[in-house]
Amino acid sequence: MNKTFDILIIGGGPAGLVSAVTANRYYPDKTIAVVRSIENGCVPCGIPYMFSSLNHPEENKMGIAPLEKIGAVVISGEARSINRQKKQVTLKDNSEIGYDKLILAVGSVPYIPPIAGMDKKGVYPVHKDMDYLIPAIDNVKKGKHVVVIGGGFIGVEFADEISQISGMKVTLVEMLDHLLANSFDPEFSKLAEEKLNSKKIRVATGTRVEEIIGNGTVEKVRLSSGEVIPADSIILGVGAVPNTSLAVSAGLDIGKGKGIWVDEYMRTVDPDIFAVGDCAGKRDFYTRKDAPVMLASTATAEARIAGANLYKLKVVRENKGTIAIYSTYVDGLVMGSAGLTETTAQKENFEIIIGAAEAIDKHPATLPRAHKIHMKLIFSKKSGIILGGQVAGGMCCGELINIIGMAIQQRVSYTELETLQMATHPFVTAAPTMYPIVKAAFDASGKMC
Amino acid sequence: MNKTFDILIIGGGPAGLVSAVTANRYYPDKTIAVVRSIENGCVPCGIPYMFSSLNHPEENKMGIAPLEKIGAVVISGEARSINRQKKQVTLKDNSEIGYDKLILAVGSVPYIPPIAGMDKKGVYPVHKDMDYLIPAIDNVKKGKHVVVIGGGFIGVEFADEISQISGMKVTLVEMLDHLLANSFDPEFSKLAEEKLNSKKIRVATGTRVEEIIGNGTVEKVRLSSGEVIPADSIILGVGAVPNTSLAVSAGLDIGKGKGIWVDEYMRTVDPDIFAVGDCAGKRDFYTRKDAPVMLASTATAEARIAGANLYKLKVVRENKGTIAIYSTYVDGLVMGSAGLTETTAQKENFEIIIGAAEAIDKHPATLPRAHKIHMKLIFSKKSGIILGGQVAGGMCCGELINIIGMAIQQRVSYTELETLQMATHPFVTAAPTMYPIVKAAFDASGKMC
Repeated sequence: MNKTFDILIIGGGPAGLVSAVTANRYYPDKTIAVVRSIENGCVPCGIPYMFSSLNHPEENKMGIAPLEKIGAVVISGEARSINRQKKQVTLKDNSEIGYDKLILAVGSVPYIPPIAGMDKKGVYPVHKDMDYLIPAIDNVKKGKHVVVIGGGFIGVEFADEISQISGMKVTLVEMLDHLLANSFDPEFSKLAEEKLNSKKIRVATGTRVEEIIGNGTVEKVRLSSGEVIPADSIILGVGAVPNTSLAVSAGLDIGKGKGIWVDEYMRTVDPDIFAVGDCAGKRDFYTRKDAPVMLASTATAEARIAGANLYKLKVVRENKGTIAIYSTYVDGLVMGSAGLTETTAQKENFEIIIGAAEAIDKHPATLPRAHKIHMKLIFSKKSGIILGGQVAGGMCCGELINIIGMAIQQRVSYTELETLQMATHPFVTAAPTMYPIVKAAFDASGKMC
Repeated sequence: MNKTFDILIIGGGPAGLVSAVTANRYYPDKTIAVVRSIENGCVPCGIPYMFSSLNHPEENKMGIAPLEKIGAVVISGEARSINRQKKQVTLKDNSEIGYDKLILAVGSVPYIPPIAGMDKKGVYPVHKDMDYLIPAIDNVKKGKHVVVIGGGFIGVEFADEISQISGMKVTLVEMLDHLLANSFDPEFSKLAEEKLNSKKIRVATGTRVEEIIGNGTVEKVRLSSGEVIPADSIILGVGAVPNTSLAVSAGLDIGKGKGIWVDEYMRTVDPDIFAVGDCAGKRDFYTRKDAPVMLASTATAEARIAGANLYKLKVVRENKGTIAIYSTYVDGLVMGSAGLTETTAQKENFEIIIGAAEAIDKHPATLPRAHKIHMKLIFSKKSGIILGGQVAGGMCCGELINIIGMAIQQRVSYTELETLQMATHPFVTAAPTMYPIVKAAFDASGKMC
């Protein structure tokens, strides 16, 4: 196919999809094409749940219905190079596609740590490709011992989910002292660790995998303690790196955080080329440092900014930097984090005050299915502004963290949170006298005097 | 008891309780006393759930543990008058209590509509008193036919809950065309109506109760249609009026909305007397008109403002006016509203744009126990600021409405919501590509061009 489109998007993941839909809304007269290298894409955050919670792994596929709905052209293929002078992208099959505006939404690639034996069969990095994942999952299910390397969100979710397969022994290996340590302070990490322990998952923190042992196929794993444990398969959940090869070879700048450098409107150094999602550089909301946040929700927010601003800067709200807002689910415990943790804030030398609270998510607390909520808010001591928050508890925590996220994005102070107006109802929230965000802000306020 | 306290609080409901706790935090050296007229108080919003959802009605009691914890003196009694010159309150038993700062948290009294036969036995206004409620509930349960008058939050929740008692026939009578019409637009009210209908509750909207018929005890009810229906008991859920008699007789001003007039810091015209909660006047956040909002969550927010500002204006954030933020639960459907509805905004002559969205609260949508979310946001067309929002769906809606509430309180614009950063997770939120607040803002944005 040799053709030219007004708007060309490379990448068919959430960032590519939302870029296309947004561009179509703001510039309905422009032609749009999306190039995708993966024929059968999937919902990225749904991958762990293909093992057990979904009835069929196929239910996690991500279709292209939104692209069809807006009449975008979908091209199967992999981009090989960009000619910025000619404004043309060449695919691996040598076809050339012209563009007026180009959006790179090419994602990330799993980080492969330099561990001996990494090339053996049965070692699975997490590729977002159904044609890769479905046979991989089948193979994992055939074994009895799984080792998950990496105790971040992906590792924790895989370990929790795989442990639900009957007869399966799961070991989760994390080199830091606690799971989820980039997003949670130790007292919250411990809640997740306790949950996994209670499911007979072995949580090996402060531990590295030194060697993957086996004759062609993985059989065992040697830990830094010297211990050797059986492993029929290994899941690699140690992070990902921005996919920047296409951008680098086109002479685009790369930031210190190794993602494609973009300005506040997701423009690269070439004003006709935008980058969004995992492949694009990110900065922290408060420190402005490069931040390695790779999240579908961040990617889609960036895609909306890029899509709206392709031809004119219409949506003047800048990309403020990432607030690193996450939620996860560990055997019924919902955990959320946004902004800076206490650990990170101290490392960055912020002068802080902590507000903590516990509450029950229904009222009276005697109602059936009530859960305890743990909440922690971090404030700048002098300016009073919220810097971050963490929450753990029942299902309501999935949106409670988004209230904190909104507060961070609006730079709300503890006095505003202390006198917040909120809706409460016996079945769906904590009591108005105990509402955890208010209670935690009140706790912090007392320490400010 | 003739004694003097630094801080005297009249009323032992949520507003009184939170006033005391806040005052103690900000002014730990001051003595605090709370006068309460109800020996066995209850959690106000839990009252409907005493019929069926709670194992025992007694589980809904509201204790005074927070008062004991801060060493406040709790006095049983009813205030009869205030002598502002002497700074003294006289109780019905003629004891006198002196104060330096006085907080009126005396709540509201149920509105009794002028319907013939209202004085018959078996007609139950909702008093927040366990010693009244427990025998009343026993009596209601003995009958087979209950008529609930008033289709606001209280009426809907009572009807839903009472219908769970085996063999009970419930009729809900509302004079307006739709249930919950003060807080929801018709398309949302209909969701609640459908739910109640599906439980065999008769929903009679556009209908009044003309007469309560019976020989001493209620037996039947005559509707405005002429129809006569059987009724063994009647629940009155037609609202409440601020309890202002004490304030009026002390010469304090009353506002146009009939609550005690207060300034932005909850001070009455007497700088040493504050009023909070249902008894205090409220203004709407956007229109500044008097607003008859009576909510425990509003009351506690006001209590926190008053408690902090008794001696010095410490918490400079004013009481911005009420955003009328509510949530309710109808047979598994959670509904929330905050700010202006489309109906109210049009009545107030705002030029508006509506953004609407539907989404599934898990992703992929094939996950078990996924529910549809309906979301509607109302924006000022020219200024782009959010004026209100409504949501209906599963449990997550309890906190989703509080995200909208935060957005209203921070006067966020549609472009900010369109590019919001939020945490998403398969089990606990909608997909990042479909997040309902973002999707509704995006819908509105398209209509702004």
